[in-house]
Amino acid sequence: MAEEVAPISSNAIRMDADALNDFMKSAFPHAEPGSRGYVVSAAPGHVRARMDPNERALRPGGLISGPVQMGFADMAAYALVLSHIGPVAMAVTSALNYQFLRPCRPGPLFADAHMLRLGKRLAVMDIRIFTDDAERPVGQANVTYAIP
Amino acid sequence: MAEEVAPISSNAIRMDADALNDFMKSAFPHAEPGSRGYVVSAAPGHVRARMDPNERALRPGGLISGPVQMGFADMAAYALVLSHIGPVAMAVTSALNYQFLRPCRPGPLFADAHMLRLGKRLAVMDIRIFTDDAERPVGQANVTYAIP
Amino acid sequence: MAEEVAPISSNAIRMDADALNDFMKSAFPHAEPGSRGYVVSAAPGHVRARMDPNERALRPGGLISGPVQMGFADMAAYALVLSHIGPVAMAVTSALNYQFLRPCRPGPLFADAHMLRLGKRLAVMDIRIFTDDAERPVGQANVTYAIP
Amino acid sequence: MAEEVAPISSNAIRMDADALNDFMKSAFPHAEPGSRGYVVSAAPGHVRARMDPNERALRPGGLISGPVQMGFADMAAYALVLSHIGPVAMAVTSALNYQFLRPCRPGPLFADAHMLRLGKRLAVMDIRIFTDDAERPVGQANVTYAIP
Repeated sequence: MAEEVAPISSNAIRMDADALNDFMKSAFPHAEPGSRGYVVSAAPGHVRARMDPNERALRPGGLISGPVQMGFADMAAYALVLSHIGPVAMAVTSALNYQFLRPCRPGPLFADAHMLRLGKRLAVMDIRIFTDDAERPVGQANVTYAIP
Repeated sequence: MAEEVAPISSNAIRMDADALNDFMKSAFPHAEPGSRGYVVSAAPGHVRARMDPNERALRPGGLISGPVQMGFADMAAYALVLSHIGPVAMAVTSALNYQFLRPCRPGPLFADAHMLRLGKRLAVMDIRIFTDDAERPVGQANVTYAIP
Repeated sequence: MAEEVAPISSNAIRMDADALNDFMKSAFPHAEPGSRGYVVSAAPGHVRARMDPNERALRPGGLISGPVQMGFADMAAYALVLSHIGPVAMAVTSALNYQFLRPCRPGPLFADAHMLRLGKRLAVMDIRIFTDDAERPVGQANVTYAIP
Repeated sequence: MAEEVAPISSNAIRMDADALNDFMKSAFPHAEPGSRGYVVSAAPGHVRARMDPNERALRPGGLISGPVQMGFADMAAYALVLSHIGPVAMAVTSALNYQFLRPCRPGPLFADAHMLRLGKRLAVMDIRIFTDDAERPVGQANVTYAIP
């Protein structure tokens, strides 16, 4: 693990929110509009994303389904990696662990993604998914991306 | 952990493949056809499922996206739980860990779900996702469901 | 997941650092002195612990071994659960996910444990392990405890 | 993920059980005798290990503690990696996810470690820990090693 790059805080990001959204729109041309969410803000070590789930996103009981939450966490992690390494479409998820914490009620969904470690080959991130209260997340993810 | 139920092998299943598919179709009425997959076979401790991903399932590079794989693993786990406890829509995922092992090429996707432990409150399952070779899975998941 | 207890912040804790350390010493009478660490501070939703690893804790390369880090994370999670529910020895770990982030050099080891969700049956916690710089953790854990 | 090496089954292993046990004894000279377990058999894609826990390994209730189980799973994973890549002490765990499935009663503990994927940079393994019945494991782990 000696290959760690420079401290996150010393790097300016390479892509801001607009650049990230443009890139992901072209990388996923078949995605249903609104199904993946978009980046609200990007800063060194941190990305915030938002998603407005449609009715396809619901599971029995009228809650946002697990796969929708996990897909949103993965998208926020992807954006966070890209913001630091630039537009490299082939960065791929190598592991995603998701803890479902509370019922996820319909409405805007937010993701706070923080970089835990950015190495040359692996990036490890902590993602919190919440609706109206960031202090009471509906889910928490650990996402590892392999960097090509 | 003293609340474990009877050994899995001693229980006949409560729902077979047809019953599981009918139940899930009614539980997810808004799901895009083909987007969730279906159960191929169900037996004590084991469910096999199949999915035929459409082009919305692709990510850059023409591979099946991670969220599609994770959603499919979650569906297979849900079916495995239901096959043992009966049609209880409110069983919910409490954790899902997914390891991406190999590139997931387009084409039919299969899931082999095995019960590791079925307790009164939690079910823990191992899920392998593969395309043409079950010995070379594209992904492996550990899924925990909370039983109401 | 409707069984969540009152918000964490509204609860005073039931055991402080001294009470936690006394309880754990009596619960693990065979533990090698210093091998488990001790609680430094406890507050609603948060515990900080410290450990001073001995030479048995080293792995090739002179670093603190993975199992020692994981055991320390588990101990901090156990203390955080106990601080909220009181001295219930039979609370048991149901899952622990550990991400190794950076080489763990010998010297005092710290754990910051935060409660993500405290339900009636499950507690889910985020644990960061670090040596000299809390902003650059050597490891991160997600720990779930089942509450009897 | 194009860097995958040849199929596991086509490789003869590079270290057998005796070579693995000799290597690990020299790599962990400070380990308490019996505290780490030893390899019973090694074959392409599979290692079985055994451990005879002492009283330090117990937690309240007289069960084998979680950290002991996790350390044993990590050791079995390390042995499985080494059996395929040869004596490379600096292979390091990058993630370990452990599911506690059943109470772990005192007595001999076994680990069945299977390779899920052996790449040039990462090895991902499935580990089952059991006591008297391999069909009823006490724990299951997913372990990822980074290969230098």
